Amino acid sequence: MIFSKPRQTNALPTILFALLFTTALSAPAVSENYLDKATVAEAKALIDSSLKSNIGFDIVESLTTEVGPRLAGSEAEARAREWGVAMFKKLGFTNVRIEPFEVNFWQRNIETAEIIAPFPQKLVITALGGSVATAAGGVTGSVVRFATLQDLRDAPLTGLEGKIVFVDEFMTRTQDGSGYGVAVQKRSGAANEAGKRGAIAALIRSVGTDHHRFPHTGQITYADNVNKVPTAALSAPDADQLARSVALGDVQLRLTLDVESPGKRWSGNVIGEIAGETDEIVLMGGHLDSWDLGTGAVDDGAGIGITVGAGKMILELKKKPKRTIRVVMFGAEEIGLVGAKAYAEKHAAEVAKHVVGAESDFGAGKIWQFDTRFAEQHLGKADEMHRVLAPLGIARGSNTANGGPDIGALRQLGMPVVVLKQNGWDYFDLHHTPDDTLDKIAPADVAQNVAAYAAFIWMSANIDGDFRAN
Amino acid sequence: MIFSKPRQTNALPTILFALLFTTALSAPAVSENYLDKATVAEAKALIDSSLKSNIGFDIVESLTTEVGPRLAGSEAEARAREWGVAMFKKLGFTNVRIEPFEVNFWQRNIETAEIIAPFPQKLVITALGGSVATAAGGVTGSVVRFATLQDLRDAPLTGLEGKIVFVDEFMTRTQDGSGYGVAVQKRSGAANEAGKRGAIAALIRSVGTDHHRFPHTGQITYADNVNKVPTAALSAPDADQLARSVALGDVQLRLTLDVESPGKRWSGNVIGEIAGETDEIVLMGGHLDSWDLGTGAVDDGAGIGITVGAGKMILELKKKPKRTIRVVMFGAEEIGLVGAKAYAEKHAAEVAKHVVGAESDFGAGKIWQFDTRFAEQHLGKADEMHRVLAPLGIARGSNTANGGPDIGALRQLGMPVVVLKQNGWDYFDLHHTPDDTLDKIAPADVAQNVAAYAAFIWMSANIDGDFRAN
Repeated sequence: MIFSKPRQTNALPTILFALLFTTALSAPAVSENYLDKATVAEAKALIDSSLKSNIGFDIVESLTTEVGPRLAGSEAEARAREWGVAMFKKLGFTNVRIEPFEVNFWQRNIETAEIIAPFPQKLVITALGGSVATAAGGVTGSVVRFATLQDLRDAPLTGLEGKIVFVDEFMTRTQDGSGYGVAVQKRSGAANEAGKRGAIAALIRSVGTDHHRFPHTGQITYADNVNKVPTAALSAPDADQLARSVALGDVQLRLTLDVESPGKRWSGNVIGEIAGETDEIVLMGGHLDSWDLGTGAVDDGAGIGITVGAGKMILELKKKPKRTIRVVMFGAEEIGLVGAKAYAEKHAAEVAKHVVGAESDFGAGKIWQFDTRFAEQHLGKADEMHRVLAPLGIARGSNTANGGPDIGALRQLGMPVVVLKQNGWDYFDLHHTPDDTLDKIAPADVAQNVAAYAAFIWMSANIDGDFRAN
Repeated sequence: MIFSKPRQTNALPTILFALLFTTALSAPAVSENYLDKATVAEAKALIDSSLKSNIGFDIVESLTTEVGPRLAGSEAEARAREWGVAMFKKLGFTNVRIEPFEVNFWQRNIETAEIIAPFPQKLVITALGGSVATAAGGVTGSVVRFATLQDLRDAPLTGLEGKIVFVDEFMTRTQDGSGYGVAVQKRSGAANEAGKRGAIAALIRSVGTDHHRFPHTGQITYADNVNKVPTAALSAPDADQLARSVALGDVQLRLTLDVESPGKRWSGNVIGEIAGETDEIVLMGGHLDSWDLGTGAVDDGAGIGITVGAGKMILELKKKPKRTIRVVMFGAEEIGLVGAKAYAEKHAAEVAKHVVGAESDFGAGKIWQFDTRFAEQHLGKADEMHRVLAPLGIARGSNTANGGPDIGALRQLGMPVVVLKQNGWDYFDLHHTPDDTLDKIAPADVAQNVAAYAAFIWMSANIDGDFRAN
């Protein structure tokens, strides 16, 4: 069954509905052409065993407890690599190694903001990653609020000299996280538009969907030839408070960011494998680093737990796959996909051997849709694999998957990708905040993810033929 | 209708149900003996007008924005008193004044905790109010966990020398907040039991019901003749993390509390009145001070907004009540009911003129039950008043009300009290945390509270006879 254009299906909210759909509509219409019966039976067995296992959650618990926060380039990220090597070995992966690379290290020391006048009070903020520091005593100025980044872009290039620019744009909550792509532009956008206009600092309403007193950090990139201004994010309640205050008259605010960029540090990707009969590679992974504020449970301890856990479930089959299964814990994702680029560079010569890739980097919510980016003549294979995944409540999605952030570079080099799309309704409540901790993860949801990854990866590793155009 | 013992009724969840109950069961059985028709009509009109008004929320918004956090004895609490005087005057209250008193001031400067070994990482904590400081570089020691305060109480008096005691007791979520009375004992309890045993510090799982990374502060009282140990609360996720870490082996933790008690400071109660025909007093209020971490929206900006707002609705009747209505913004509640004691002391001679009192200090949830503490022969009056309140979804409760914390001293001196009991299901998610901010308050719920207070206070100010035994 070949589709002439990408399909969009709606989410099927329950396993029951998925079962009905699969049984009543899909199954009779398509025969199994690419997956042998043994592989399908093994994939189904992997789903059953994974749903009964706590392995994915246990891995997240171990990482977030025994390492905790693991900022790219930090001593803690180095400990996380040691943890990753030990975990891969303990679980029985082979060819375990670290592929090191260097990053520009940045860290925060002290960060404070307070309204000086007319209503003295502290505000909860956090520096955005890569921000320059303020002078030691902080910078003080009048706050000028812009409801959206576009409003700031539309503002004259004069008139903000010496001011503190405040971009108060809201983010839209969506199941698929699509609100993020829009909202995140204000991070670097506010910094650079403020810099162009001679402002002394920039503040943004956090890029997030919660209403708790947590600021959301995240990386900014200064544009060339623009004055670098210190830039921080306010928690949503503090953005509300500042907006209300500004509406009442002039607000004098002091911002103090003691942050530093002391130079190069080592980071690295940690790799473990399940050796196959051939040197073709089926790749899955997540990222090992996290922001420093939380313990990186949903971002992206979950992705590590899900993909390493899926590999462990496959190892328990005690059967060699046709293709080699490679699990990658990417380093330094948060500060600019540095590990992803290092991997793509180091493995450029073998990209053609990467049959397919999948990254888990969208929290720990249940998977509700199976998106692919395969050559069109291979969509029948996607449908065959989907029929095995459907009982997990996973709908067949589009063929326009971008893959996760860490496999984007490989996709651009021609690697087919899938996205096992998770429910991200609550993801941006926690993303990049101090509140990204283990208690936010439901073990049953992780098990559903492990089941889907284990089954999909096993099928991909054993299916006849590949997913490329030629 | 007189009850021979206190009644306990269940909450009636909807206005519809309350209406049915009132109409079908209560109304035919009891005639109106104490409330004249005009008063009942006015009380019903107050309910209608209050439900259409945003006055309560507007007052909370003003206080939490234009003052913000207002720790007892601080410069901010002094600004809050000025705000209170100005607000009373603006709204048309008379006899507006501040009744000052002194408090022992305490404040926090810096507070940090971190696991030093085996898994270096920061933990989110806050000093408990009144805690002593640590030495400048902090104290470092092994953590010993106790699942409950009772377990610590049961521990030998030797064996904890030089250790950091961690009381990990959970709090039970309840609609009426009854879990708090149990859980709060660990605050002073952990400090004092640790002090008795030569521990160098005490940590508790926050007294709260949320699972966010907010620690809950709150006052402790050191027992006499016990070594004072620095004491702090961990957020729930950090308590989880520490519990998991301790389960894996010895944990070295460093706690640094830079807090100070620089001496006496002024605080005060702010009072506004609606003059009646007599000098009998009907009292309502909330507390003006808040903890320093949030902006004191639910604790107790809401109580200020509800009771001052109810007074404003009554003022709009433009009719003099029989009794004088007194609204009190109590100071320094959080650090030991200092304003309550000062009021009871200053007004001891006129307690007999206080016909009834009601305090709003349990957040901004809807009122679901009307509890009283009246002499038994006056319960018919309570029932008459309840019939007016019932359409707001308010059930008749017990006659064992304790009143709010700030009117407890007056109750002990013989003042009858009521509790317009709010739904506190979520209250201890926010209580004493940085997350106690305006956005957590639903304006419609505040309006329901204002309606109930306005109607109840108007009826109490005009009802025939009082609620005392003789």
